[in-house]
Amino acid sequence: MSPKNAFYAQSGGVTAVINASACGLIETARQHPDKIGKVYAGHNGIVGALSEELIDTSLESCEDIAALKHTPAGAFGSCRYKLHNLEENKAEYERLIEVFKAHNIGYFFYNGGGDSQDTAYKVSQISEKMGYPITCVGIPKTVDNDLPFTDNCPGFGSVAKYVAVSIKEAALDIASMCNSSTKVFIMEVMGRHAGWIAAAGGLAAEKEGDAPHIILFPEIAFDREQFLARVEQCVKQYGYCVVVASEGAQYEDGRFLADSGNKDAFGHTQLGGVAPTLATMIKHSLGYKYHWAVADYLQRAARHVASATDVEQAYAMGKAAIEFALAGRNAVMPIIVRESDKPYSWRVGEAPLSQVANQEKKMPIHFIKDNGYAITDSCREYLSPLIQGEDYPPYVNGLPHYVTLKNQLVEKKLRTEFKFD
Amino acid sequence: MSPKNAFYAQSGGVTAVINASACGLIETARQHPDKIGKVYAGHNGIVGALSEELIDTSLESCEDIAALKHTPAGAFGSCRYKLHNLEENKAEYERLIEVFKAHNIGYFFYNGGGDSQDTAYKVSQISEKMGYPITCVGIPKTVDNDLPFTDNCPGFGSVAKYVAVSIKEAALDIASMCNSSTKVFIMEVMGRHAGWIAAAGGLAAEKEGDAPHIILFPEIAFDREQFLARVEQCVKQYGYCVVVASEGAQYEDGRFLADSGNKDAFGHTQLGGVAPTLATMIKHSLGYKYHWAVADYLQRAARHVASATDVEQAYAMGKAAIEFALAGRNAVMPIIVRESDKPYSWRVGEAPLSQVANQEKKMPIHFIKDNGYAITDSCREYLSPLIQGEDYPPYVNGLPHYVTLKNQLVEKKLRTEFKFD
Repeated sequence: MSPKNAFYAQSGGVTAVINASACGLIETARQHPDKIGKVYAGHNGIVGALSEELIDTSLESCEDIAALKHTPAGAFGSCRYKLHNLEENKAEYERLIEVFKAHNIGYFFYNGGGDSQDTAYKVSQISEKMGYPITCVGIPKTVDNDLPFTDNCPGFGSVAKYVAVSIKEAALDIASMCNSSTKVFIMEVMGRHAGWIAAAGGLAAEKEGDAPHIILFPEIAFDREQFLARVEQCVKQYGYCVVVASEGAQYEDGRFLADSGNKDAFGHTQLGGVAPTLATMIKHSLGYKYHWAVADYLQRAARHVASATDVEQAYAMGKAAIEFALAGRNAVMPIIVRESDKPYSWRVGEAPLSQVANQEKKMPIHFIKDNGYAITDSCREYLSPLIQGEDYPPYVNGLPHYVTLKNQLVEKKLRTEFKFD
Repeated sequence: MSPKNAFYAQSGGVTAVINASACGLIETARQHPDKIGKVYAGHNGIVGALSEELIDTSLESCEDIAALKHTPAGAFGSCRYKLHNLEENKAEYERLIEVFKAHNIGYFFYNGGGDSQDTAYKVSQISEKMGYPITCVGIPKTVDNDLPFTDNCPGFGSVAKYVAVSIKEAALDIASMCNSSTKVFIMEVMGRHAGWIAAAGGLAAEKEGDAPHIILFPEIAFDREQFLARVEQCVKQYGYCVVVASEGAQYEDGRFLADSGNKDAFGHTQLGGVAPTLATMIKHSLGYKYHWAVADYLQRAARHVASATDVEQAYAMGKAAIEFALAGRNAVMPIIVRESDKPYSWRVGEAPLSQVANQEKKMPIHFIKDNGYAITDSCREYLSPLIQGEDYPPYVNGLPHYVTLKNQLVEKKLRTEFKFD
């Protein structure tokens, strides 16, 4: 009997290292041809499974698969699509089983954040509830660092490094200019509900007085007067003020500082524009000359300044997913277990998908200083190991050399097209 | 007779490599103790000369001076302060001479862009018009790449590399997501009157269809309908659309797309917000989901991804400034002369300050494709050598190790304070 094939898909917002997980998974699967046939990657995530658009990764060279380790974003395409509950839309699951059967798929690997692990969990129930034998393993990924159980999420360490490096550099810039020009610099970073990424900006401050002088966390209600007073105090004391603002920064009543009014496919409000909102507030109230930056995609795609620790862990999660599957584990997700801070050491652990799905890990409140504007030493101890090490991509002609795969689709075997809602 | 001391100052917006010029200047000066005494750096540029705040660089260790080569921004502080004409404000020049005399200063080095070279030129006239013997050499610097005579400006190559790398990375991100999510990504970059930095984004496109699909140059009048049609066409053809927008993008009547209404010390309108303006336009007219980034200071401070060519040239300009001064050249500026594109080679040349000052080098119109949205092959040939090579700073604890100098001020010798306007 030929071994079962595997389905792998990337889901949700991509990161600088999600392809490193794909690399770990495919390279490890290739070492077990007796147990795992081909690895099919979903074209645009789970949507590729439903629409029977399966990429045959066996057609990619070893060199190209290895190059995934240094290539940011989702090499097979990602999606923001959440499966319904089995009770709500049985057709989705029947379709998945149809596709899995047609392509002899016995393993399902889903690489994503909280919403995606929810999807992975639902697929894992197919075995039990619909009698189709499938081994389902989630692979953690999210720049938001908000998955439970795992000490940290692959993707976060690199965005943390990007933000800390950027703040350190921009702070030198404004420090040079503040005597006769710009007094306030604001950098807006991602993190819808949790302040992990904003907190990472705090790593740039190595001694008292260093930038950033103010971090705005979603966890701490924004108080306009207090904020403006703090900006003024910093400008008077240090000559300038550097602010890191989470896109999720919000007023006491839960209103985001900058709510664009748009919503994404999950019904989440689409954010953007905290930095200009704050800049205008400062200009009008204090009159300071300002500059602001919104890093947006640049921060999560910045493979050029990725954390080596992050790359290593992302790879390890992909590798572990195969190992878990081969060990017959179903409905689980490999996690990162921290064994010690100094020296930093970690190992691969395991969490049940039933408990991972739809849980958000918030910043512990003791990671935020009492004034609400800075990180504590324990937060620094937690964050610092995650940005350690550089792992530069190769450069050709002055630019990083990122791989573009062939992404050849497997011939469709089903006669029907799936109708998306 | 003890040799004359030198005054060096940084001026205007700082860059990732202006300190590399300082490094080249100070290291070279130290090799000629018989001809150049101490190098005094102006605390916050020319303002430091007027206020007699002189930093004694001889107190900095060789290691720290060497570290300037990999440290972004202005290590001695910069300023936006333009000297008046000799006729308008003779007191400024009399004060300079007073300070120069008090500290035995016979060399004046000014590191900056167009406005700063104007200041350097005015100082150079002191010899002739006011009888104080001083050798004055400008050192080119500006991310805007708009100085005349020199093939390119130190500082530009690194911001060009940052923008090209960032666009390449963000384009992979949106390509991964466009099937079910974001369709348009807009990155706003610096460049008030010239599209050099925006053009550099074009280097990310290595083959037909690659991002960026649209570049908005200040040189080409913005046409809303044509722009929206092009965005729609790209989304239909490629699945997504990446836009690089210069902060200086403007309508036919010269109105900037996003005019904040603020002005800087030179009377220039302070810009920012083209990206959100375009995003809103696209959302309202085409309904596409968008993301946007404004790099602002991040782009010009990004020493972590500096161009090795740029670092080398910045260092060479500082070194050449000393060599010119020692050769008795006055009122000149070292420039970069391109000798060939492929293989790229260049040498140090010389331009007269009288002709450099207040001239802006625009993008040649044949560098922009006929459709107004892309760069031509000749533009690519010009730009490509400038981003070649990586020159990573050392990292400690996951962050670049940038030097902070002692910056000890020389004891004041004058009894009076200078009164700024």
